[in-house]
Amino acid sequence: MKIAAILKRVRAEKPLVHHITNWVTIYDCAAVVKIFGASPVMAHALEEAGEMTRLFAGALVLNIGTLTRELVDAMIEAGGEANGKNIPVVLDACGAGATAFRNLETRRILDNIRVDILKGNSSEIASIAGENIVTRGVDATSVEKDLATIAKHLAAESRAVVVITGSEDIIANPQGEVFRVANGHPVMGQIVGTGCMAASVIGTFAAVEKNLALAAIAGLACFEIAAEKAARTTALPGSWKTALFDCIATLDPDEVDGLARIQS
Amino acid sequence: MKIAAILKRVRAEKPLVHHITNWVTIYDCAAVVKIFGASPVMAHALEEAGEMTRLFAGALVLNIGTLTRELVDAMIEAGGEANGKNIPVVLDACGAGATAFRNLETRRILDNIRVDILKGNSSEIASIAGENIVTRGVDATSVEKDLATIAKHLAAESRAVVVITGSEDIIANPQGEVFRVANGHPVMGQIVGTGCMAASVIGTFAAVEKNLALAAIAGLACFEIAAEKAARTTALPGSWKTALFDCIATLDPDEVDGLARIQS
Amino acid sequence: MKIAAILKRVRAEKPLVHHITNWVTIYDCAAVVKIFGASPVMAHALEEAGEMTRLFAGALVLNIGTLTRELVDAMIEAGGEANGKNIPVVLDACGAGATAFRNLETRRILDNIRVDILKGNSSEIASIAGENIVTRGVDATSVEKDLATIAKHLAAESRAVVVITGSEDIIANPQGEVFRVANGHPVMGQIVGTGCMAASVIGTFAAVEKNLALAAIAGLACFEIAAEKAARTTALPGSWKTALFDCIATLDPDEVDGLARIQS
Repeated sequence: MKIAAILKRVRAEKPLVHHITNWVTIYDCAAVVKIFGASPVMAHALEEAGEMTRLFAGALVLNIGTLTRELVDAMIEAGGEANGKNIPVVLDACGAGATAFRNLETRRILDNIRVDILKGNSSEIASIAGENIVTRGVDATSVEKDLATIAKHLAAESRAVVVITGSEDIIANPQGEVFRVANGHPVMGQIVGTGCMAASVIGTFAAVEKNLALAAIAGLACFEIAAEKAARTTALPGSWKTALFDCIATLDPDEVDGLARIQS
Repeated sequence: MKIAAILKRVRAEKPLVHHITNWVTIYDCAAVVKIFGASPVMAHALEEAGEMTRLFAGALVLNIGTLTRELVDAMIEAGGEANGKNIPVVLDACGAGATAFRNLETRRILDNIRVDILKGNSSEIASIAGENIVTRGVDATSVEKDLATIAKHLAAESRAVVVITGSEDIIANPQGEVFRVANGHPVMGQIVGTGCMAASVIGTFAAVEKNLALAAIAGLACFEIAAEKAARTTALPGSWKTALFDCIATLDPDEVDGLARIQS
Repeated sequence: MKIAAILKRVRAEKPLVHHITNWVTIYDCAAVVKIFGASPVMAHALEEAGEMTRLFAGALVLNIGTLTRELVDAMIEAGGEANGKNIPVVLDACGAGATAFRNLETRRILDNIRVDILKGNSSEIASIAGENIVTRGVDATSVEKDLATIAKHLAAESRAVVVITGSEDIIANPQGEVFRVANGHPVMGQIVGTGCMAASVIGTFAAVEKNLALAAIAGLACFEIAAEKAARTTALPGSWKTALFDCIATLDPDEVDGLARIQS
């Protein structure tokens, strides 16, 4: 019921979602936001990143997948404006834990702006949480410790909603609550871009829903329900990705609450 | 009749279309040019942007979607070479009117090179024309004033062919003529990249047709006829985009003049 | 038999393939590596390019399609680390022979790191071999001289495996052997990205097979067998590209040696 209402609001309000993101999946990030009914914009020049956020954005999505120092400067500029106007900032910590530079720049973002939703796979979030973990490139490595505990502690410490994506997504808010979204399909892990798109969808939903944990849950559930529906047509990666966009466009608000597999 | 001939020439002459464009739709811009039968190249380093244009290009397409100061420097370098060898320069004023930086850099391009075809959506072109209008990110906002009048005045003032894309495209030449292309399908507005691809197609057609308003009309008509044909297969955005490329590849010159909906 | 074994090892070992590549086909390069079962990473910041290679990479793929001086600096940094840990470096000499800058930077790469597999189309490789040839943008121009001879001499001189892609691919090793792979389909030349993907696949296979000529042959054969299978479904470029990814995902090791058309 709640999810349906948020999806409807995304389509009705068409929030502008400003991205400073990576060069690999930038098209997919824009495409998924547009097909959900919102309006993506990608503007990374330091001279306009802040202004674009200040004037138009309903949410800001940052993704460090192919970061440079200059790109992080623009992220901090835009993030400061987002904080100032009190719109949500999503950070996809893509590849955090892989290199010293990536760790330092992630820290620089977290030290300079307020990140409202911190999203990553298991090893990325564990690395930020201070666990002694290494991320292998941008793909998750296994984490021994209980992920829900890591998410909960990091959410309390960072005052951000923490999202760990995986076959079961974990969402922890700073108040100590932990939720799980069990939708999705294994083919999502066989193709490039699903993780980045998930962050963009979370940002889109957070632009219209003030309860940010709920926004993350609703965004993930809708995205992954569409993924499941697409996989019922085909689980071959090329065709599936095409079907994913089709299924997002035709996602019926009346069905999402029934299909969502959410635990708290 | 005329459109068929231009499409045939694109396929026979295979012009090289040099782009300095944005990082979101760069693949789509290259893909659409290639599938129309021409040869795309993207080279943005200041050290070679001019040489690439000078040695090989039949047209130059500039797109400010994800501009930086350095990228605009390269655009001006390549644009100067294009002007010098008298090949058409297309500027897709993506997001003009959104930020002060974007406005200043658009002005810098227009002040430093001769743009032969200036293309944008309604609010982008209205903004350049000096109307008191704001573009919300990269999506069009409504413009009160009559678009044909804006296009006509801007074409006369700038000495460029002005193209305003929309459900009905408006093409104005500096001689005071105004044309309309009414082909296309609403799904084009639901997916990222169709506007950028339209500019690339215009550049491709302008590389083989000296009457630049006619080139723009022919390019838009062919692109949008393919879009309509694809939409007869499916209007779901993922599948439609795949079908669009298929329909461009198989577009029959014998049918385009019959299907084109052009008004003057 | 040999090819099947290498394909199986790619899927079992899931090597990380680090790319510093171009902005046009970067998604396709990552996608093809992932769908073959390996793990792509793209990290081009000078501060981490070397570390990413040193810590995780099984192969390094460099592609100069949209080069800048800074990007080549990062390539040399990562290449030095790859040389130091003795993993294969693939250079896709995209557009070599087109501009003076591209030629100088290609030379700078070859002078500063050991490239193990040098890949390009006919005019790109002929240009590097010192033939008086010009590449028109990034598409091949015709080369009069016998390509096998050019490849053989360049392989001997550069101590790299040299790969010339085309309707028939030529693979020459420094020991004077020349091989040909005749798989593939004409639609590959009608769409952007197949050449870049081929280099990424070669890198992926070279990450698990020390005989680099064999790795290149196996990678090209598997990629092009999938291309043929996709073309049996459809040879329309949009649909074909989707089918290509599907056919790579479902490529059966038991069939590849029977379908490979390799000559030595």
